[in-house]
Amino acid sequence: MKKKSQEVEVNGHLIDSMVLTKILDKVMNRGGEFEILHLEVGKKKKDSSHAKLRITGKSAKHLEEILDDIHRDGASISNKVQVRLKKALKDMTLPDNFYSTTNTKTSIFHNEKWIPVENQMMDKCIILKENKASCVPIRDVRKGDLVVVDEIGVKVDPPQRPRDKANIFAFMGSSSSSERPTQHIAEKVAQDIIKTAKRGKIVIVGGPAIVHTGAAESVADMIRDGYIHGVLAGNALAVHDIENSTLGTSLGMYVQDATLAKRGYRNHMDTVNAVFKAGSIRNMVESKKLTSGIFYECIKNDVPFVLAGSIRDDGPLPDVIADVVEAQREYKKVLKDADMVIMVSTMLHSIATGNMLSANVSVVVIDINQPTVTKLVDRGTWQALGVVTDVGAFLPMIVQQIKKLTGKK
Amino acid sequence: MKKKSQEVEVNGHLIDSMVLTKILDKVMNRGGEFEILHLEVGKKKKDSSHAKLRITGKSAKHLEEILDDIHRDGASISNKVQVRLKKALKDMTLPDNFYSTTNTKTSIFHNEKWIPVENQMMDKCIILKENKASCVPIRDVRKGDLVVVDEIGVKVDPPQRPRDKANIFAFMGSSSSSERPTQHIAEKVAQDIIKTAKRGKIVIVGGPAIVHTGAAESVADMIRDGYIHGVLAGNALAVHDIENSTLGTSLGMYVQDATLAKRGYRNHMDTVNAVFKAGSIRNMVESKKLTSGIFYECIKNDVPFVLAGSIRDDGPLPDVIADVVEAQREYKKVLKDADMVIMVSTMLHSIATGNMLSANVSVVVIDINQPTVTKLVDRGTWQALGVVTDVGAFLPMIVQQIKKLTGKK
Amino acid sequence: MKKKSQEVEVNGHLIDSMVLTKILDKVMNRGGEFEILHLEVGKKKKDSSHAKLRITGKSAKHLEEILDDIHRDGASISNKVQVRLKKALKDMTLPDNFYSTTNTKTSIFHNEKWIPVENQMMDKCIILKENKASCVPIRDVRKGDLVVVDEIGVKVDPPQRPRDKANIFAFMGSSSSSERPTQHIAEKVAQDIIKTAKRGKIVIVGGPAIVHTGAAESVADMIRDGYIHGVLAGNALAVHDIENSTLGTSLGMYVQDATLAKRGYRNHMDTVNAVFKAGSIRNMVESKKLTSGIFYECIKNDVPFVLAGSIRDDGPLPDVIADVVEAQREYKKVLKDADMVIMVSTMLHSIATGNMLSANVSVVVIDINQPTVTKLVDRGTWQALGVVTDVGAFLPMIVQQIKKLTGKK
Amino acid sequence: MKKKSQEVEVNGHLIDSMVLTKILDKVMNRGGEFEILHLEVGKKKKDSSHAKLRITGKSAKHLEEILDDIHRDGASISNKVQVRLKKALKDMTLPDNFYSTTNTKTSIFHNEKWIPVENQMMDKCIILKENKASCVPIRDVRKGDLVVVDEIGVKVDPPQRPRDKANIFAFMGSSSSSERPTQHIAEKVAQDIIKTAKRGKIVIVGGPAIVHTGAAESVADMIRDGYIHGVLAGNALAVHDIENSTLGTSLGMYVQDATLAKRGYRNHMDTVNAVFKAGSIRNMVESKKLTSGIFYECIKNDVPFVLAGSIRDDGPLPDVIADVVEAQREYKKVLKDADMVIMVSTMLHSIATGNMLSANVSVVVIDINQPTVTKLVDRGTWQALGVVTDVGAFLPMIVQQIKKLTGKK
Repeated sequence: MKKKSQEVEVNGHLIDSMVLTKILDKVMNRGGEFEILHLEVGKKKKDSSHAKLRITGKSAKHLEEILDDIHRDGASISNKVQVRLKKALKDMTLPDNFYSTTNTKTSIFHNEKWIPVENQMMDKCIILKENKASCVPIRDVRKGDLVVVDEIGVKVDPPQRPRDKANIFAFMGSSSSSERPTQHIAEKVAQDIIKTAKRGKIVIVGGPAIVHTGAAESVADMIRDGYIHGVLAGNALAVHDIENSTLGTSLGMYVQDATLAKRGYRNHMDTVNAVFKAGSIRNMVESKKLTSGIFYECIKNDVPFVLAGSIRDDGPLPDVIADVVEAQREYKKVLKDADMVIMVSTMLHSIATGNMLSANVSVVVIDINQPTVTKLVDRGTWQALGVVTDVGAFLPMIVQQIKKLTGKK
Repeated sequence: MKKKSQEVEVNGHLIDSMVLTKILDKVMNRGGEFEILHLEVGKKKKDSSHAKLRITGKSAKHLEEILDDIHRDGASISNKVQVRLKKALKDMTLPDNFYSTTNTKTSIFHNEKWIPVENQMMDKCIILKENKASCVPIRDVRKGDLVVVDEIGVKVDPPQRPRDKANIFAFMGSSSSSERPTQHIAEKVAQDIIKTAKRGKIVIVGGPAIVHTGAAESVADMIRDGYIHGVLAGNALAVHDIENSTLGTSLGMYVQDATLAKRGYRNHMDTVNAVFKAGSIRNMVESKKLTSGIFYECIKNDVPFVLAGSIRDDGPLPDVIADVVEAQREYKKVLKDADMVIMVSTMLHSIATGNMLSANVSVVVIDINQPTVTKLVDRGTWQALGVVTDVGAFLPMIVQQIKKLTGKK
Repeated sequence: MKKKSQEVEVNGHLIDSMVLTKILDKVMNRGGEFEILHLEVGKKKKDSSHAKLRITGKSAKHLEEILDDIHRDGASISNKVQVRLKKALKDMTLPDNFYSTTNTKTSIFHNEKWIPVENQMMDKCIILKENKASCVPIRDVRKGDLVVVDEIGVKVDPPQRPRDKANIFAFMGSSSSSERPTQHIAEKVAQDIIKTAKRGKIVIVGGPAIVHTGAAESVADMIRDGYIHGVLAGNALAVHDIENSTLGTSLGMYVQDATLAKRGYRNHMDTVNAVFKAGSIRNMVESKKLTSGIFYECIKNDVPFVLAGSIRDDGPLPDVIADVVEAQREYKKVLKDADMVIMVSTMLHSIATGNMLSANVSVVVIDINQPTVTKLVDRGTWQALGVVTDVGAFLPMIVQQIKKLTGKK
Repeated sequence: MKKKSQEVEVNGHLIDSMVLTKILDKVMNRGGEFEILHLEVGKKKKDSSHAKLRITGKSAKHLEEILDDIHRDGASISNKVQVRLKKALKDMTLPDNFYSTTNTKTSIFHNEKWIPVENQMMDKCIILKENKASCVPIRDVRKGDLVVVDEIGVKVDPPQRPRDKANIFAFMGSSSSSERPTQHIAEKVAQDIIKTAKRGKIVIVGGPAIVHTGAAESVADMIRDGYIHGVLAGNALAVHDIENSTLGTSLGMYVQDATLAKRGYRNHMDTVNAVFKAGSIRNMVESKKLTSGIFYECIKNDVPFVLAGSIRDDGPLPDVIADVVEAQREYKKVLKDADMVIMVSTMLHSIATGNMLSANVSVVVIDINQPTVTKLVDRGTWQALGVVTDVGAFLPMIVQQIKKLTGKK
């Protein structure tokens, strides 16, 4: 066997985002060798670093294995080579060896130029159509589509850790902790919301615990005041929110004073029935049957919402999209151009949303259960801030901070 | 205001299932009074108790409130009164004041006799058609259906705590604990499985952690050996199981030795693509592309499985039912006549299944995360046994115990 | 073998505190029989119930087993029989068959009258000295002490569930949940604190997370305003509180803005050294080195505190009682006559305190980790209210509520 | 203000242990600048890297701040300068500005040579006595002792991530996960135990859940077979283990079949009394009252154990060291020269032990509660492997693996 070498380049925050650590790690783990030919480290917070490495494998095949592995971390072969494309032979079926995407910015080299991939998401394929490249899920692939195969001619930007969050992240380690000053974290999140909302788009992904814990009003406030520009949820959040708005209860218990309503066990199904009777949530608002709450504010303020069906739904409400593949498409529409996503107490919808997000979107994950937060934050996203807290106490605190910081109230 | 009284009766394990406790509690909480006219407590494990109470409210309305409340715990007005019925005025819309079901055995009094309600589930309505009563979800209600309203003429059997499980339940309290002799619990569960499988039906509800933790083989073993008669899951369990069976990995890591496969990040999407290529899981088995694992055994042993779609699915596989309302119907078919349901590491599908089960089905909930187990067990089911343990260690232990107890090794 | 019977009596909230449920359960579990000779159930919230049962065992020995078992739940042999006493033969050693106490009110029958046992705690023995009975830990037993043996002549009041808390408890089930309206729970706890503080005594048991999460000021406020009458903790709470008060940090991070202090890693040990230098916390306060915080307020307001040493202590501070047996004695002194105990984010000190409390003391357990709350609440105390929440958000909320409710702002 | 620069050097696994990442991070966070003068990265798994950096601050004071901060990560001023020493003016009191230690290998430059610090632990001070430097807790400092102050002349080796564990760590991310192949992890841990036991020392730190979950026999096996060379615990593990060995129960429940013993509630206190009666655990073994279990094997096999008292102890047993400062000293003796520490289900004793360990000792943390594992693993120790699993299933699995791997069965 003859040793084989290849030069690769990588750009980005190599040191502080641990990109170089990961690349060298992988080379060593696979039994390869490396030489750092050139390393220029950015000196200021905003500077990027540049490295040129020579990677050596025990054979051409071994080298290829190593290169495949480090490709996803941003280590690209220096010379520009034409991307390889193959036709899909059937609808919803990819050619063997299709390129499986990361969630970081990607480009392909085609016809002597770099074409950026649009709609970047994780674990999808790349299709080239009329000189435009886009990230596409397998269900949307059609026979004859040109699909990128192998890693050749594909350039991945390494994921970046936002420099100005470094301090707060340093404190928390890579995961998340419940042992932090809660009021300060709430203030920080409020600042981020205010800043982002000025020119950007904020989407909230939420579960029914928002209503149980008495925080529905806080979310409604944020929608009314223009801080939320999209709501992604399931059937449960909508039913609970409308039960709360129309009957004052969540699963039959008054949220105001935690007493049980008369025949309160019926309230949940009664709410489902009331929406069916009206025909839709919008109809309930227009007929003045629904006059407050999260979804009332969505309709009043033209904030789009998508309710995705799930196997555990009661009903589900007529507004729920029962077909999950269609629901995914509608989620993506709302997430388009989002700058910040706030995920509250719902693992299902949060993971779904996480899979659709490019790595440069800010994510805040709020849940009382640490394993849930860890699971979400660990899914390869440097940008996620995990907050292990009580939603019923934390969301009102954010709203209070927003009012304080903006001088309203 | 004039006080008003009413005699009610209740039967069942009044003392040890805490039925009487709950009823008297509710009367007192609502400010009512009670007198125990008669109480006959069953003396042996299998005996039922009988009580006759006089309930007094401050007014006719107050009395009605109280009676509504204790009705669901099995306290019925003694005299037989005709059930009240109203027509549904629209498809998928119930008349006001519809009767919302519990998950315990229910009968309605109609045309001078008690008619048992079929297909008992929680939070549904009751429809009477050709002298047959059945429990129906709101989406299946059609215009003109006769729907039970109010509580009059409806008799609910109070939920029963299985007497011979008393000891193990006493130990665990009403919730679940991780501080118990694991090996013994595994033995007990194994005994239950063996005993139930002899004449009964066992359904497993599972999440992908079964594969991650290396327990897929244990589940496959149990299917092959005839201990599992239905599998309910989502897309993830199927993709992980097939990735494991065809490539040896779970999300790119070899389950055998926890090393990372070459280009292992592709394995997940590669598996999805392989099933699309074959057209279905069954096709993969028939073309010998899939020769082991949970779903292979299902097909080989004619064990039905249902994969319910969810918003977070990658793919999803062609076998997945993307429409959640249809998936619910298919789940119910598999659950019909089940005697035991084992729920492993999936909150979503477990809650969905729990909602479809009558209270007399044995349920075992296995998860490493205590809040998940607590949430499932607390959903009003006396019959659920919660085990906070490591699935990757516990399922192999159950299989070992089954083999030991049945002398097959 | 000849069957043997015995009449027993039991008083208290038999139905709603589930006392009767437990007693009949145990009789059945042990294979015994019972007959309810008389049952008079209290009709109003404050009324007590009375039952007379005939218990039958398969033999005298079997009967005795059953009686032993139900004795702890309050089922006493009806006729008054002299308690049995034996001398301790050595210091710190009990006679065989010593009576091991519960945490509910107990009396012994001696010289023709019922003598109430003082200082009731769980898992201790009872010593009779000069016609006074008291509950004593094994380490305090001296040679020659008269120790109660067997269950004869010992009467236990069954544990009571506080009736007016019934509603909130019904909601939570027997354990504790994070899915409740947080703001309302905070209001309820605030009301309890205000009401209790008027004539009663409130003790707080706390861990260092109080400081990490930014809630130290809230506790200091409550001490200053007269709502806390004793503080039980370990070395960590004191070191963190003093670090926070003197340097503004908790483990080197500024609690105000979550930034890291210069050489902040030294702050923890620097604080320990500062207290050693002063000689004690009191000296620091008197020399004006410590001018705010939890322990400053304790000293300024003559609120006693006890710091118990533990194997993980840094230092520990000179104020810490390094001998745990002595620390237990000092804890008990502070707990004497306490009406309410608030346990915050410390399993170790909370369990220690729980073991020293009679069952009629109100307990509130606050922690972000559900298994911790479950473990504490499940330790056989009906009176404990578990709140799974974020301490850093919940304690400030309580203080806000107290101020609102008392009109001081 | 005039900018000020200083060259520093750092050696070790700069890239893969993320040492360089941390150092540059800190410089940037403090607003400083850096230039990489020289970077030589080790090419093979065992190679160390070397870097020379020029750090620039806005002023001499600013530079000093930065240097202080990065010192703890191993960045030392290149030129050899004499360490600074100050006398302790009182017993148990350090001079201001004392050097607070890390848990990684440290040396001080004194009299023209580097003196290695012995007994390295975290958050202690360094004392120089007769040309020997040692790490000493504040309580052991005596008036007149020469204590190291400032960071000058102190060299810290950066913490190293063990290279051959890289793969398993990479999988788990920086924290720990319950979603891994349990059987494989058990095999890996078993291999480590076998390898280490050959020439090294293994200490186990354990809580009472070992007994509750039925794993006491597994630990006893490992002691008997020579795999455990020290046991660190508290009162609870000992009482539970002896209750289990002498009466077959854990808190009154038979571990074999989870049934409740007759008067089982007394077993715990009965066990405490039995040890008091004998005088000590050793006496019980010698008088044949104790013939199996963890502590029996300790005494039979001359394996030292230390029981540290805590405020929650029942008893505590005569063998328990009630003074926690003394208990810390005894713990340290057992930990001396330990190569591997296995921490099972006890946060208190595990944190205590972690504080006493140098960073080059292998640590395995086993617990069912993820936040507990995260908290222990996050305490700055690269070397800790966290396993979120069920102790009652995992420890028997390790013993099975050891027997399989060593061919003894």
